[in-house]
Formats: sequence, C-alpha cells, structure tokens
Amino acid sequence: MTEGRSVPVLPSYGPVRPLGLGQVSITGGFWGGRQAVNATATLSHCETWMERLGWLANFDRVADGTTAPDRPGWPFSDSEVYKLLEALAWETGRTGDVEAESAIKRLTARVARAQDPDGYLNTCFGHGDQPPRYSDLEGGHELYNLGHLLQAAVARLRTAGEDDLVRIARRAADHVCRTFGEDGMRKICGHPEIEVGLAEFGRALGEDRYVEQARLFLDRRGRGTLRDIPLGRAYFQDDIPIRQAGVWRGHAVRALYLTAAAVDVAVERGDDELLGAVERQWERSVARRTYITGGMGSRHQDEGFGEDWELPPDRAYCETCAGVASIMVSWRLHLATGDVRYTDLIERTLYNIIATSPSPDGAAFFYANPLHQRAPGKPSDGTEVSPRAEAGVRAAWFDVSCCPTNVARTLASLEGYLATTDDDGLQIHQYAPCAIRTELPDGRRVAVDVETDYPETGTIRVRIAADEPSPWTLSLRVPAWAAGASVIEDGGRARPVGPGVLTLRRAFRAGEVITLELPMRPRFTWPDPRIDAVRGCVAVERGPEVLCVESRDLDGLDALVIDPLLGPQPDPGGARVRGRLAAPAGGPWPYASGAHPVADGEWFDVTLRPYHSWAQRGSSSMRVWLPFSVR
Amino acid sequence: MTEGRSVPVLPSYGPVRPLGLGQVSITGGFWGGRQAVNATATLSHCETWMERLGWLANFDRVADGTTAPDRPGWPFSDSEVYKLLEALAWETGRTGDVEAESAIKRLTARVARAQDPDGYLNTCFGHGDQPPRYSDLEGGHELYNLGHLLQAAVARLRTAGEDDLVRIARRAADHVCRTFGEDGMRKICGHPEIEVGLAEFGRALGEDRYVEQARLFLDRRGRGTLRDIPLGRAYFQDDIPIRQAGVWRGHAVRALYLTAAAVDVAVERGDDELLGAVERQWERSVARRTYITGGMGSRHQDEGFGEDWELPPDRAYCETCAGVASIMVSWRLHLATGDVRYTDLIERTLYNIIATSPSPDGAAFFYANPLHQRAPGKPSDGTEVSPRAEAGVRAAWFDVSCCPTNVARTLASLEGYLATTDDDGLQIHQYAPCAIRTELPDGRRVAVDVETDYPETGTIRVRIAADEPSPWTLSLRVPAWAAGASVIEDGGRARPVGPGVLTLRRAFRAGEVITLELPMRPRFTWPDPRIDAVRGCVAVERGPEVLCVESRDLDGLDALVIDPLLGPQPDPGGARVRGRLAAPAGGPWPYASGAHPVADGEWFDVTLRPYHSWAQRGSSSMRVWLPFSVR
Repeated sequence: MTEGRSVPVLPSYGPVRPLGLGQVSITGGFWGGRQAVNATATLSHCETWMERLGWLANFDRVADGTTAPDRPGWPFSDSEVYKLLEALAWETGRTGDVEAESAIKRLTARVARAQDPDGYLNTCFGHGDQPPRYSDLEGGHELYNLGHLLQAAVARLRTAGEDDLVRIARRAADHVCRTFGEDGMRKICGHPEIEVGLAEFGRALGEDRYVEQARLFLDRRGRGTLRDIPLGRAYFQDDIPIRQAGVWRGHAVRALYLTAAAVDVAVERGDDELLGAVERQWERSVARRTYITGGMGSRHQDEGFGEDWELPPDRAYCETCAGVASIMVSWRLHLATGDVRYTDLIERTLYNIIATSPSPDGAAFFYANPLHQRAPGKPSDGTEVSPRAEAGVRAAWFDVSCCPTNVARTLASLEGYLATTDDDGLQIHQYAPCAIRTELPDGRRVAVDVETDYPETGTIRVRIAADEPSPWTLSLRVPAWAAGASVIEDGGRARPVGPGVLTLRRAFRAGEVITLELPMRPRFTWPDPRIDAVRGCVAVERGPEVLCVESRDLDGLDALVIDPLLGPQPDPGGARVRGRLAAPAGGPWPYASGAHPVADGEWFDVTLRPYHSWAQRGSSSMRVWLPFSVR
Repeated sequence: MTEGRSVPVLPSYGPVRPLGLGQVSITGGFWGGRQAVNATATLSHCETWMERLGWLANFDRVADGTTAPDRPGWPFSDSEVYKLLEALAWETGRTGDVEAESAIKRLTARVARAQDPDGYLNTCFGHGDQPPRYSDLEGGHELYNLGHLLQAAVARLRTAGEDDLVRIARRAADHVCRTFGEDGMRKICGHPEIEVGLAEFGRALGEDRYVEQARLFLDRRGRGTLRDIPLGRAYFQDDIPIRQAGVWRGHAVRALYLTAAAVDVAVERGDDELLGAVERQWERSVARRTYITGGMGSRHQDEGFGEDWELPPDRAYCETCAGVASIMVSWRLHLATGDVRYTDLIERTLYNIIATSPSPDGAAFFYANPLHQRAPGKPSDGTEVSPRAEAGVRAAWFDVSCCPTNVARTLASLEGYLATTDDDGLQIHQYAPCAIRTELPDGRRVAVDVETDYPETGTIRVRIAADEPSPWTLSLRVPAWAAGASVIEDGGRARPVGPGVLTLRRAFRAGEVITLELPMRPRFTWPDPRIDAVRGCVAVERGPEVLCVESRDLDGLDALVIDPLLGPQPDPGGARVRGRLAAPAGGPWPYASGAHPVADGEWFDVTLRPYHSWAQRGSSSMRVWLPFSVR
C-alpha cells in the first residue's frame, strides 16, 4: 500500500506507484497554462451552466419533494455535478483554491439533501411521479451517476480526508452493494462507471467489499441481461463477457470505463487472466481501431468503435470523453505492468484530444474531434446550448454535456499522471515544467525539477534538486515517435537514446542536469494501407502533436494535394509542406471511365498547425490527412 | 390530360406521358422474374409479418375501442399496411391476380373500421389513452401514414376505379385539408409524404384542392415550425425553404419524398421557379452526394445525406427506400422535362439498389446497401425481426420495416416506369422483354415487342408488332455509360450511336426489327478525387450493373490490390480482374514514419459478380471499390 498519495488511481499492487498532487507540481508551460484556465474559468463555467439549466436545482427538487415531469436535463445530468465536484476536489488538492473549496461545500450540501435515507441518490428516478428506481437499467444511468459520485469522493478523500461528500458516497456505495450484491438484483447498468468508481472508492477506504461489488458487476456483464436495442447489446458491452472479448466495441466511453474497472479488479484480485484479456483488447484496439490523434470511436450513430480499420477522418467521433477514458485505461495498465507503450498513448491523447477540446479561455469545448472538417461550423456566441455533439466549433455547453466536466477533472488531476516511483527510483512519463519531491520506500530522497517548453522545443532538462548519497534510478520515457533522441549528462556529450526508457542510476547530486533532446522536426506519418478511408494520404506530426491544415490558412483546401517526396519543413506555425491545388473539373456524375481531368496549380508552401489549436481562429474547414500526388 | 393510364405518376402537363400497366407488359427476363417473385412470395410475406406482429390488429383495436399502451410497432407501422395495399393494387392491375384482389378487400375492410367519422385515421394517436391527434408532428408520422394511404388509393383508382379504399382516402384527404388548410393548423409533418400523396390523389381525382394542400405543406416547410432536435432541423428539411435550398440534406427518404411532391406541385402550377430549384438540387446531389450504385444517404446516424463528397463505402447507408424515393423524383423530373439523365439514374438505381434488396425467394431484404462490408453478417433463419437496418445479410422483417413494402410496390408498378409517349411517338427508357401497345393522341398505332436478356447481354431487339402507315418516332435511351453502342436496322449494317437518345422516324411496318447493341464488356470506373473515402480505388461496372468482390470468392479480401493497367475481362460471373494479396505486416500502431512493409503475393484472377447478387450465397464480406497498386 502507498499511503497519502493524492491521485485518481492508486492500485494496491504493481511495479510502479503514481506520484500525486503533493509530490508533483506543474509550474507552467503547455499544461500549466491549461490548468490555470481550468481553475479560473472552466470550473465556474460548469457550475454556472448547471445552475442556469436547472441540473443543480434537480437535487433541491428531490429534497423539497417538488419533482415534476418537467425535470430538465438527461437522466445522467447528476453525473456532471459529481464530475465537477471531482474536478473541484483535485483543484483544492493541487492549489488549495479557496473558491473551489467553497464550491465543494455548496454543491455537497445540495447533493446531501437529495439523498434518500437508505443511500439511494438520484434526481430522475424514485421520487414522486418519477419512474421507480432501477426501472430502466439500459438507459437510466442511475448506477453510472453514482460511479461518478464515488470518483468525486475518492478525490475528496485523498485531498481533504473524510467529509460530507465522502459520507454521502459511502451511503450510496452501501446502498449499491445491498441492492445489487450476490443476494440482490442480478443486474447491471447500461453505462459502465459504477465499477471503476466502486473499485477506487474501495481502495481509497480499504473497503474490499466495494471492490468485490465492482467485480460482481464486471462478471455479470456480457451475458445479455440488458434488453437488446437497435444498436445491439455490443453498444453497452453486454454482448460478450469481458474475459472473452478480443477487442473494444460499441459505445467507446462505455467500453473504456468498463475496461478501466477491469484493470482495477484484475490488479486487486491478482487476476492475471482478466488483465491479460484487457491487454489483448488494448493491443488490437490500438493497432486497428484508434486514430492517429489517439481518438477512439469511429461512428456517430452509437458513439462507438467501428470494425477493424474503419477509421474515417471526416466522421471520426473521437469523443473527448473517450479520450479521458482511454487515458484512464492506459494509466491503469501502465501502473499494472510498467510498460511505456501505455504512457506513449497517453501522451498522444493528451496533446491531441484533451488539449483540443477546451478553447483557450476555457469556456467552450469540442465534444467530437473529427480529423477532417468538410464544412466550417456555424459560429456560436456562447450563450446557447449546443443540441449536438459535432459542430465544427467549440460550444459553451451541450444538451449532453459530459465533456466539459470530464476535461476539467482530468486537467485538475494531471499531476497524478506525470510520474511514478518504484523501489529504486523515479520514472517520468510526461514532460512538463514541474517540481517532483518524493522519497523512495527506504527513505532515499528524490527531488528533481523539470525545465522545458516542450512541445515548443524538444529540450527537457531534468535538474537534480537535492543530493542523495545512495544511488537511485532516474527513468525517462523516450516516446516511440522520437527516433533520433539524445541525452546529455552534466558536461558530457550528446549520446543517442532509442525510443523506450532511458535509465540512469547513480548517486545524483543537487544541480546535476540531464538533458533529454527529443527530435522536433516535423515528420510525415503514413497510415496502414488497410485504413481505407485515408488511402493515398499522409499526415504530418511534430513531436507529440498531430498537425493539420485549416481553410483559414488555405483557400481551396478541398483541392489540396501535397508533394510527399519533399519532407515537411519546420515553420513557426508548426510545419510547412509543398502542395498545390488540383481541382477536378467536376461534372454531372462523379464516376468516370477514365482519370478525372485535374487542373494542377502551381506548387506553394502550405502551413500546418497543431490539431489541438484548430478552429481557435474562427470556424474553418480542416484536414489532418493530406492527399498526395507523385505526378 | 391523359386518361385511363394505370401509372403511379400522371402529371397534367409535360413533354412526355408515361405508359401504364395496360400498355406495357413485362414478359420475363431480369425484371419479369423479380415481379413474379414479388407477386407470389413478397406480398403475402408482408401481410403475414404484419399480422404476426399485430400491426394489422392495431386497426381492429381502434375500431373495437381496445387500444392500449402496449400497441405494437412504431407510429409509422400503419404506412406499411398502406404500402402493401398499394403493391396489391398494382399487382391486380398488372395481372388481375385474384389473391391480391381478395387481400385488398380483406385489408381495406379492417382499415375502414378504424377510420374516425371525421376522416382521421391512425392507430397510434387520438383514441383512448393514446396521445392526442397531431401532438407530435416531429415524430408522430400521422400525415406520413395518410400520404401512403393516398398513394395506395391512387393505385386502386387507376387499376380498379373508385372503391372503399378510395372512399377512405377521400375522407382522410378531406380531413387533412380541413385540419391543415389555410385556416387550420399551420403545421407540417416531420416526415414528408402527405404532399406527394395529396398531389397525385388530386390529379387522379381531378380534385385540385388536394394539390393545393400539397403546395401549402411544401411552402410551409423549411421555416422551423418543427422543433429543433439533436440531428438538426435539416433532418426533416425544415431548415431551408425548398425553393432556396441548393442540395439535398438530412434524412434521405424524407428529402426525396418531399422533392417528388415539389416536382408534382411545380408541374401542376406551372411553377418554373420551383422546378428549377429542384433540378439544381438534383444536379448537385447527384454530382456530389450519390453513390456509384445510385444509392443515397451516407450517414447511419440520421439515415441522411452527408456533406458534398462524403461517400464512405463501408458506412454507406443507401437505404433501399431512398432508392425507391430517388426513382420517384427522377421519374417525375423526366416526365417534366423529357431529359434522359433522369432515366439514366433510374436504371442505375433499379439494378443496384432495388434489385439488391430482395432475396431471390422474395422473403428477405436489405435495408441499408453498403458498398463495403467489412465483417460478414450474422446469418438469420428468417424467423426473427431484425432490430437494425444494417446486418450484412438480408432480413425477413425489420423493427422499422419500410423497405420490404416499398420494394413490393415498386416492382408491382414497374411497367409504369418503362416507357413514355409524346405526340409523335414512343420513348423506351428501360430495357426489359415486354410488349408495348398504345396509340398516339391522333390515333397512330404504336405496337412494339422488346426482346432482350439484358443485362445478361446488351442486345435489345425492338420488333414492330403492327403496321402504321403514318410515320412515327421511336426513341431509345442509350445509357450514358454505353460508349460504343450501335444500332442495326432491319437488314442493315451496324452503325454507332452515342449516349443520349436514338431517334428513328418513319412509317414502321410489322416485323421490322431495330437492334440496339449496348457494350457489355466490363469496365473500370474511377471516382472523382474529391471522394476521399475511395481514393486510390477503382470499381468495375458491366452494363448497368455495378460489380463487387465477395469473400466467398476470395479469402483475404481485406488485402486485395488489383492491377489497374489491365482492364477487366469478361467472365461468366460478371468480370475478372488481375489482383494480388498485399497484406501489410501490421504492428502495434497503424501509423508509421515510412511505407508499411507489405508482402506482395502472386498475381491471380479475381472474380467480380453483380452487386445486386451479393450475400445471396451466404454472408460474406464484400467490396465494390478495389484498391489498386501500380508497383
């Protein structure tokens, strides 16, 4: 057991243990700036919208016995309050923010009043004229909501100790165990989330029966206890037991929340069969069902995974929440195995999904993250609720508004995903300017400062901040994309390091600097030929960032073809490639017995910018995958 | 006015007038066989399923006052009964089928009992505990259902004269005019169809006020009177008035039923502005939003059109009903203009959508018609209702079962789409073995027999069946794909004819044969480069048929690349191309900094078969668009 670490995920066993908010402080840079915006703008933005729309008042109505058929919001709107509470809890743990603390108390008080004496807590079922409790397990989201309550309580417990929110969560968790235990309803919730909430809440409190309830839910799933629906039972992963499944399918967020819980249960129970099944699912899903951005979910219809190789850029769903959930899964798998392929994917997802969603002012968000926007979105003035997930512009709030609070809780707890320790040293996974202060189990002192403007440049300086007479091991992840990386140790000469992990073991002395140099020259990236939707195209990446071309930078983007023989060049925007406009003449029928006549334009330079910044200068059409021509 | 023609569409004005069931008899061949299966299997299949599922009993329940909340079927299930009635009516008109006649009487009697005294007729709203009439115009489909009732009544009126079904329809139409007229509710139905029903029923009865009500509905639409929904108001074409729209968008069947009505209204009112708007929408939609199969609808989420050039083969929706509706639109546009580009598209849609849907035994149907099936569908034993539109196998019946009855009514009325006359002669549009007997307005006798096994071969013999001393003009459509066609007139030598229309004018004598020879050698067809989803691919067509490769004929279809330099060869199956398997090695991440290593196999012959026959030999994966490699 690792006590006292303020982290979202703290397994009881594993080769590495995550450092938390007390041990890692992000001091600025790419992520520090985003965390500041999250703290100062997004958190209050979320509370304001939920107050405006009555999602908060739903709790008051239950408490006051004034529920009515006009209840605003979807059945899962409660969960947004809990995700905001979780974000607020991490924020207070990170910075001691007084406003966040006061918001927690304010929200907790309203939630508390709505809880039934037996622990049941929901604003849409079970009161007055509402449908009875658990009368719609397919779509009701009651257990889903409670799962988010438990995650919020974990955050509170690990940053402030047991308080009202934790007590509410305890009563709710006990209610769930009584109602759905071995002797209770042998049912599951249509949207997994209770499982991951119970598992972590159990770990945080040392209450194994919560972990056991999570295991029960997991093993019940995949046996068709939920009703078949037009989208099929794969939609909520009730088609195949998780131990037998070979790949992720159905609704991406559901699949990933479920998988995160499976890792937790596997680790707590020493269940290598289950862990192995999840690893295999990750492998195939990442190899065949994942976008270059790390985005997951190829279909709008069910917000879900498609078949292997079905990865359309234009209709990519890549829900922001699926990015959050993918990080949840990969981080748990890393903690269970120590394998950096998982933290590689986390980096990709952080820079290209999590960073993409919020606007620079933290008051608007992408829900879907397509890799090709055909028609520019309709600008919004930020005062309306977007009725739909895809819009081509960031929206202030959504009818289904899961993403803003999910981004908020991820950014507020980001310190918990940067570094780990094992018995012999420190492992740094994500590069941000930060201070890391911890001790190894035997008391060796580990103190380093990371200085970097990554991913602006690839220079990462790790400065030892305290002497430690006994040797220890410093491990630095070298991303899989970073062929040609090098390291310079104090006063030494650069020596090449391959992708994977760079380990240095010695008695480090304060002031020593280890400089990892990651190659930031933009590069072409080629898709597997089985990804039919991007055949004949190439993407440009730079460091961990996927780049894109926007119509803001290029009129006639539709007709762009690029020269794949001349590699992309560095550019202040991100990169430059050589391209020309090759607009087909067009005709009454788009299928012809010979090559379509194309009027090739002159070659010119095309600017690419980071995908995460797209549509920040106004609505735009956009492409990540660029057709090439070698004619 | 053209009296007494048994056709689904009979405009009051126009350059050509359609021949009907009395003037054209299909005598066998590709379509004759399908009509026979439709008559002997599909019609009773549809009635059996609707009885089994209680969709017919819904009418009895209304009549008996026993409606209840457990009403089976969707709110639009009534329309399936009406579409079946329409199919039965055409079938009796075509063949005098006694069983069909008896089914009409049986079904009409049950429908009649459910009609309210004021003409309202619906089994889901307005009775007992049901929601009030017209309380859910977005989703309730009440007017949609009645539109199909009117189309059924048109079929009955034009094949048997006024009977109970026609009288029911009259009362319903009068109710609609009273309720939604200038002085009534200024509302529209979420699913267009009442408009096209009213317009034709008005034409059939000479009741202009029905046409006027159709015009009212049309001009009310596009002004946001329907509620906004997550899919947007474009879903039901309530986003832009039809006169101002530039392209089809939203739900494809809705867009097309609406457009069909717009042509009817434009023609009846001499409204060239409206006709011009529809023609422009057709042009852009066909040039940029239509599949090579003629299929329409790129998105599953809203069963709708995508953006320009958004034509994914794997997620092509191409609903069978959208094919039916596309034919409805193009036929009306042809009758309004005489332009054969419309009948060209009809041919494509007939052979590649309408012919694709039903199984050879007429008891199972495709709903969606993708151009790439990645994973073979799960075989069905024909006893279950398919809960979803896409399955990769034909299903006996669907939860939403609009397609079987739509195919049935189209096949039963196919004679009405084959040929037209104008003041000087006959125009033949679709080639099937048939007898055509008619008179021109001035009494000249036109009698021809078409002998052909098209599209098995491209030889179409038009044999003059009666002397006519005065010259008249025989016009034969030469399809746009038929470069290299030729004609032989009695005893003469072949002479080339270009795509478009071949016209021959003289005093034809009985026994004369005009032989049109269409080139049936399989050919490569190349997509416009802006169709991103099929870049680097080529399709194979043969005559009017699109061909495809199935995994039944080729293990490892996923890895197929073909040689685009050697043209496709004739083959008893359909065509042969040279291909090889080029399976990428694959790896943990499908994006790489260089070309993916590919193990090229040996070249071999790949058999292609007509797309309409796919999955007839069992479930299969399938591709229309084939990647090519010139390495």
